Amino acid sequence: MNKPSKIRHIATLERVSPTWRARVEQALDYWLPEAQTHPARLHQAMRYSALSGGKRLRPILVFATGQALGAAPTLLDGPACAVECIHAYSLIHDDLPAMDDDELRRGQPTCHKAFDEATAILAGDALQTLAFHILAHDPGGVQNSRARLRMVEVLALAAGSRGMAGGQAIDLAATGQQLDVAQLEDMHIHKTGALIRASVQLGALAASPVDEELLQRLDHYGKCIGLAFQIRDDILDVEGETEALGKARGSDQRQAKATYPALLGMREARETADRLVEDALESLEGLDQSADVLRGIAEYCIGRNH
Amino acid sequence: MNKPSKIRHIATLERVSPTWRARVEQALDYWLPEAQTHPARLHQAMRYSALSGGKRLRPILVFATGQALGAAPTLLDGPACAVECIHAYSLIHDDLPAMDDDELRRGQPTCHKAFDEATAILAGDALQTLAFHILAHDPGGVQNSRARLRMVEVLALAAGSRGMAGGQAIDLAATGQQLDVAQLEDMHIHKTGALIRASVQLGALAASPVDEELLQRLDHYGKCIGLAFQIRDDILDVEGETEALGKARGSDQRQAKATYPALLGMREARETADRLVEDALESLEGLDQSADVLRGIAEYCIGRNH
Repeated sequence: MNKPSKIRHIATLERVSPTWRARVEQALDYWLPEAQTHPARLHQAMRYSALSGGKRLRPILVFATGQALGAAPTLLDGPACAVECIHAYSLIHDDLPAMDDDELRRGQPTCHKAFDEATAILAGDALQTLAFHILAHDPGGVQNSRARLRMVEVLALAAGSRGMAGGQAIDLAATGQQLDVAQLEDMHIHKTGALIRASVQLGALAASPVDEELLQRLDHYGKCIGLAFQIRDDILDVEGETEALGKARGSDQRQAKATYPALLGMREARETADRLVEDALESLEGLDQSADVLRGIAEYCIGRNH
Repeated sequence: MNKPSKIRHIATLERVSPTWRARVEQALDYWLPEAQTHPARLHQAMRYSALSGGKRLRPILVFATGQALGAAPTLLDGPACAVECIHAYSLIHDDLPAMDDDELRRGQPTCHKAFDEATAILAGDALQTLAFHILAHDPGGVQNSRARLRMVEVLALAAGSRGMAGGQAIDLAATGQQLDVAQLEDMHIHKTGALIRASVQLGALAASPVDEELLQRLDHYGKCIGLAFQIRDDILDVEGETEALGKARGSDQRQAKATYPALLGMREARETADRLVEDALESLEGLDQSADVLRGIAEYCIGRNH
């Protein structure tokens, strides 16, 4: 593996990500109803969760893909916000007592702890709705209505019962079960992979029309980094520190959840992630340096420490 | 009021509604992933709730409005399904222990009782997503992408934090509070009114292009019947029988929720509903007998017994 090149790409990502993070946060602030808008408690809860920081990996993927294909940033703000609203809603619902029952998220009380369970359910519900509202309404977005509808479809497929929500159902059913690697991969492809993949697709659709073969290569990139990201998550959960993660260390192990290091051993888990990232980088061959942030994201997926 | 005319319109509604109900149920059966589709438990829960009967008022409104404006039924199946998916999701989440904590819905165990709480949360989540997927994907639907995007926007606004989800938040905040009529109306306009209004708008958008003035009159019709429907609901809750409603009689009273009969007295509550229906019928003036089902729905809103 070409270490020096990797360092360069991660540096490219690190150079743009604060700007893009700020950009999506500004856009979220714009699209989210104000905290005093009736009903205020619901809107406060939505803002609390959607504006509470985080890596903003999915919006950054939208921006990075759109930029690689030459889409203007203003065309990417809406899709970036939409995918982050879906992500934020999923975190609120996953944290609920009936689901993963988590009290901390990014070092802060989870939505149902900061507000109450009913408000958290509704805040998640309404953040999901807002995602589709943004894609459909966005006055500064892609003017091609057909591409816009395709975005709605891509996001809905990725978020729904055959995507992210299905992944959470698979995850719940798996707790306490003995999973094999194929089942673990199936869970992650749904639970986190689908939305990461959709982020890449949304960024590409904002640059419509895009060559179909290129779209498919980008989709393969999205699939690979989604899984690599998850394997790294499992590795970090074993190795990581509570402080850096903002959640209790080894929480997956305590709940007897299947992880890649547990199933493959630490060394093979790392190697699998490395191979996926190599594969992702290959998918980007032929794209010029405007795709360097995408390359940096791939490398970040195995290099990150939190 | 013109009684004989009313009886005629309700009869028109009664003549078409079994056909339309069967039609939307067939379409829902088509759009919902099969019960054995992975993850099966989630898809079973989605089907359990979405295919468990009910009045199908919202899909019937989509069909009735579309028919009144000359839209082919095939253009209405998708929007009718979509609005029913939103309605079904809202019932699942409203019934959750953290919300209204109901064990029965339409005489059957609620979703979280028949399955479990986590599955019920996810089934509601995924039904919401499915609604937007249907509107965006529907191959037999309106070919005009702009009209289709407008449908996504209308449904998202109606379902979100400034619509139905907001209404549920207002309702939760109101439990045990002393509401006045304006606050009660505000709650219902959000909680049930927004989606009923959206049903009319979706039916009209399927018939695009439609004259703006007519759209506004139809929207007024939707607003009026939405509120009349709710007032009748309150009246039925006081008067109705457990068996006919499929839920415990007087449950609103027991939970000390504000109702129209409680705030206005039974007679004024009835008169308010009657006035709203007269107003709704006036909005339809100028439309020929193809709007008779819409007239029948307005009359049904105050005449129904369950």
